[in-house]
Amino acid sequence: MLTNARQFLLGAPLPTSAEAHQRLTKVKALAVFSSDALSSVAYATEEILLVLVIAGSAALGLSLPLASVIVVLLIIVATSYYQTIHGYPSGGGAYIVAYDNLGVWPGLTAASALLIDYVLTVAVSTTAGVAAITSAFPDLLPWRVELCLVVIALITWANLRGVRESGTLFSIPTYGFVVLFLTLITVGALRQIAGDLDPAPAHQVDQAAKTLTLFLVLRAFASGCTALTGVEAISNGIPAFQKPEADNAGKTLIAMALLLAIMFLGISFLARALQIVPVGDQTVVSQIGRQVFGDGPLYLALQAATALILCLAANTSFADFPRLSAILARDRFLPRQLTNLGDRLVYTNGIVTLAVLASALVLIFGGRTHRLIPLYAVGVFLSFTLSQVGMVRHWRKQGGAGWRWKAIVNSVGAVATGVVLLVIVATKLLHGAWIVLLLIPLFVWAFHAIHQHYVAVAAQLSLDGLEPEKWAGLASRKRQKVVVPISGVHRGTLAALRFARSLSRDVTAVIVDVEPQVTARVQERWPQWGQDVPLLTLASPYRSTVGPLLGYLDEVDRNDPERGLAVVVLPEFVAAKWWHELLHNQTARMIKRALIYRRGKTGRDRVMVDVPYHLRR
Amino acid sequence: MLTNARQFLLGAPLPTSAEAHQRLTKVKALAVFSSDALSSVAYATEEILLVLVIAGSAALGLSLPLASVIVVLLIIVATSYYQTIHGYPSGGGAYIVAYDNLGVWPGLTAASALLIDYVLTVAVSTTAGVAAITSAFPDLLPWRVELCLVVIALITWANLRGVRESGTLFSIPTYGFVVLFLTLITVGALRQIAGDLDPAPAHQVDQAAKTLTLFLVLRAFASGCTALTGVEAISNGIPAFQKPEADNAGKTLIAMALLLAIMFLGISFLARALQIVPVGDQTVVSQIGRQVFGDGPLYLALQAATALILCLAANTSFADFPRLSAILARDRFLPRQLTNLGDRLVYTNGIVTLAVLASALVLIFGGRTHRLIPLYAVGVFLSFTLSQVGMVRHWRKQGGAGWRWKAIVNSVGAVATGVVLLVIVATKLLHGAWIVLLLIPLFVWAFHAIHQHYVAVAAQLSLDGLEPEKWAGLASRKRQKVVVPISGVHRGTLAALRFARSLSRDVTAVIVDVEPQVTARVQERWPQWGQDVPLLTLASPYRSTVGPLLGYLDEVDRNDPERGLAVVVLPEFVAAKWWHELLHNQTARMIKRALIYRRGKTGRDRVMVDVPYHLRR
Repeated sequence: MLTNARQFLLGAPLPTSAEAHQRLTKVKALAVFSSDALSSVAYATEEILLVLVIAGSAALGLSLPLASVIVVLLIIVATSYYQTIHGYPSGGGAYIVAYDNLGVWPGLTAASALLIDYVLTVAVSTTAGVAAITSAFPDLLPWRVELCLVVIALITWANLRGVRESGTLFSIPTYGFVVLFLTLITVGALRQIAGDLDPAPAHQVDQAAKTLTLFLVLRAFASGCTALTGVEAISNGIPAFQKPEADNAGKTLIAMALLLAIMFLGISFLARALQIVPVGDQTVVSQIGRQVFGDGPLYLALQAATALILCLAANTSFADFPRLSAILARDRFLPRQLTNLGDRLVYTNGIVTLAVLASALVLIFGGRTHRLIPLYAVGVFLSFTLSQVGMVRHWRKQGGAGWRWKAIVNSVGAVATGVVLLVIVATKLLHGAWIVLLLIPLFVWAFHAIHQHYVAVAAQLSLDGLEPEKWAGLASRKRQKVVVPISGVHRGTLAALRFARSLSRDVTAVIVDVEPQVTARVQERWPQWGQDVPLLTLASPYRSTVGPLLGYLDEVDRNDPERGLAVVVLPEFVAAKWWHELLHNQTARMIKRALIYRRGKTGRDRVMVDVPYHLRR
Repeated sequence: MLTNARQFLLGAPLPTSAEAHQRLTKVKALAVFSSDALSSVAYATEEILLVLVIAGSAALGLSLPLASVIVVLLIIVATSYYQTIHGYPSGGGAYIVAYDNLGVWPGLTAASALLIDYVLTVAVSTTAGVAAITSAFPDLLPWRVELCLVVIALITWANLRGVRESGTLFSIPTYGFVVLFLTLITVGALRQIAGDLDPAPAHQVDQAAKTLTLFLVLRAFASGCTALTGVEAISNGIPAFQKPEADNAGKTLIAMALLLAIMFLGISFLARALQIVPVGDQTVVSQIGRQVFGDGPLYLALQAATALILCLAANTSFADFPRLSAILARDRFLPRQLTNLGDRLVYTNGIVTLAVLASALVLIFGGRTHRLIPLYAVGVFLSFTLSQVGMVRHWRKQGGAGWRWKAIVNSVGAVATGVVLLVIVATKLLHGAWIVLLLIPLFVWAFHAIHQHYVAVAAQLSLDGLEPEKWAGLASRKRQKVVVPISGVHRGTLAALRFARSLSRDVTAVIVDVEPQVTARVQERWPQWGQDVPLLTLASPYRSTVGPLLGYLDEVDRNDPERGLAVVVLPEFVAAKWWHELLHNQTARMIKRALIYRRGKTGRDRVMVDVPYHLRR
């Protein structure tokens, strides 16, 4: 029944052979890999304005220059990644590049930064997507958190079923978003030139505004840098491109960077031209949309496309987080369960982990994008920087024609992203970035501890130093000591006794005297049914079954350290229905658990044999 | 560590030999067994008034006549139980008497009625005890439910530690309560005669009062009948008395009935004399106490004694419920876990069950005595009636001198309690008694179903029809088929293989091909380490380990139905720390679970052998 419900929800299991690698054209690849980067224009301008407005509405004029600086930064980063694509044509995530060129610790640092940022991408994109919806339908505002959780649940469900990264499917919302945004910018610009646009209705701006400090400007810049999140996506996905992969990926990267630059600058320009002030219940993009398009269908389409591409952006993390987790698990830095491909050929455990963490973030931060932003981008810029530094080392090691020039390009990238990282940390530290700065080393430590454990296990299981010949020898065990704990004389007992006798000539049955009447009855019937096995009665002053039994087994070990105790044979009757088990004492199960987790005092492993007797009703 | 915390909370384990049976003097026995009955005067009068006041304050005059009728009923019931004590000197609970004389179904009906009433006794006594406290300290009123839960938790804890029914300990609150109540009544009566008492401040009574119907009078009577709960306690506890047990118990019963009658009538009289009207935030007894004693230390002592004896009354159920559950479990009508005597010689499972159910009732009914009362007393009077009818049959079967006279006394008791039962059901049905009327047959059905299961299990495990000689024969199994599922070549595998080879000459190792690289590596190393056991690789298109393995085992059964598959040997490495297990796939455990719950297609039970390999770090 459980299996049926599962299949209904998730679909029938897929064989491993169904794992096909679809190759994407440049147009489709842009749709698949750029949603995270492009969708950030839905909130990046607003985040800049939200910081500047602290210094009053006059300060908002700085938003366009700041946006321009961020676009310059974008060009530097994109150029750096263009080189990474050609340097790591099989896919160069920050973890791989940093690990390869800088060593384990930088690699793990990049990995933990990335994992944290994937979780934040889901939380930020979902909350921003829901904000696009509530801007159009303010009645839904009180359900903000619930809506976010529903969206995350839906994306999780789709990923557990296994959404193939279908280019066609992804093209519609991505290009729809691009087209609508470009239309918005064009129409807005033309109407502005024609003098046909009214500024937005004046909003109340806090009169007790602070003075505009350099710190505030840098904080606004740091907030705007969230526009760059997702730029690295293409460099992770090179193998999905048609041949020649690296060339096509490089061109797609350039197209994406261009689109992102245009849209970001365009929205920032319109926000200034319309004198938009950020307000609580409506996004900046929605305000611009209403002014340019009016309240009609075009405006609603804009909001819908914004919400959809933000869902796609969240969805990107659902591919990236489980994939990176699986790579880390394969390298023994995370629990190996994360490498398990589920029924539907997806990393089920990674998907569920991500969904739980992102939902927790949404709950903690009340579903508000603005509260999440200070945590965001720290991880991204840390991994940018590590990746660029790694590339510099890569070019130096590789040498070849023009390596110096390539190294210089990546050095510029590394310095630029490194400086931005410092700015982000310095300006956002007290607003939440400290959480991320605390988590990254914690994660690295956990990766290390897990790795140590796996190394220790492998060493203990290793066959080094053993001689195969010794093991291949005869394996008679007729002299081993076998103990059969019983609780009564019944069909289950008989089967267990017979099996025990086939193991050895030295079998002892043991009953723990918890209920004297039961013990007496067993002793009375033993001569007839005991199959000539001696029966030992153990006293149990404290009415425990497990305690005296373990004591006896230890004693056997002590009395005959040479042979010791080898095997415990447990009769266990298995109920016909699971709820029948509530009516039985489960003593066999308690004994099994106690024996497995507790090796004998002599340190010898004890073999445990279960002789089940199935009840039919 | 868990064991230490447990010992700190509950005390060190007690050996079975510590189960001593203290014999009680009459004076101490009265303290131990009468708290339930005597404590009901704390709320019985109030419950009568609460019904009568519906018809306006004039109707309150009926309370004294109703109390008198209830005292007459008390005399009848006490006389009946006096006879039961002599008829069942080894303890005659309603379940035993009804089962013995009327058969299984009446016995089970009495048992379920009693179990339900024990739970209600805890809930009603606790809420009434807390009401005594909040009457003195009205600031605590908002914490009513929390206080009840804390009280129940404390009583539960004391019982899990094992409160011996210490006569000395119980005497203080019980006799303190009796002395304070008798003082209250005496002082109140004297001051009333001296004309020195003012009536209580006039309270607002609902002006839109209903007319006083016969139904309302009967409902008031039914509510007052809760005063009789607990009268049967002495007849359950006869073996605890000093010799001659029955005589002493009988005399104690008379003393208890007399005390109860005096206190109940006295409080009802004072309530009338002082024109007390029941109010929400103060009990009737508290109102009387304030009028008679003033607000001083005597009043506080009265409230404290009331709260304490009500806790003792709740505590009585913590002895009775687990004991009756254990008797029912011994007779195979409840899960046998209820017969387990815990570390501290108490029926741990019964105590915890009672605490959970009573706490649920307190929560559901908001910690208010008055809301719980309609459910109460139904079970008591049902078990009274069944017990009396059973006694009539008992005397007839037993015969002897004057059996007719004894039978008549119990017949009068049966008719009286039967009529009261009908009155209670009729007047309280819609106020909550329906819940109890629904639960009683449900419990009886559950008892029956559980019994059927145990009977079926016993029949399936029975040795009837088996011949001991056949089982005593040789038990060589050298030709049995043994399968060893492996996931790699390591020390754990080697030990399992060697053990398997000691079992049979027909051993097959099996690897499920989930990760091709791992499988290839195992195949490569097999010739050297495989101990000449053939290795079989199973394809797993859906990446499941358990599925293909089960399929293979079934196939073995099918291909050789004569021998079939006998044994599965599982190598299992056991982590050094429990949290290490989070880092492993637990495949061995999954296989074990699947194999235990699923017998082969041929219906043959498969023996499962666990060969553990303990990791040390």
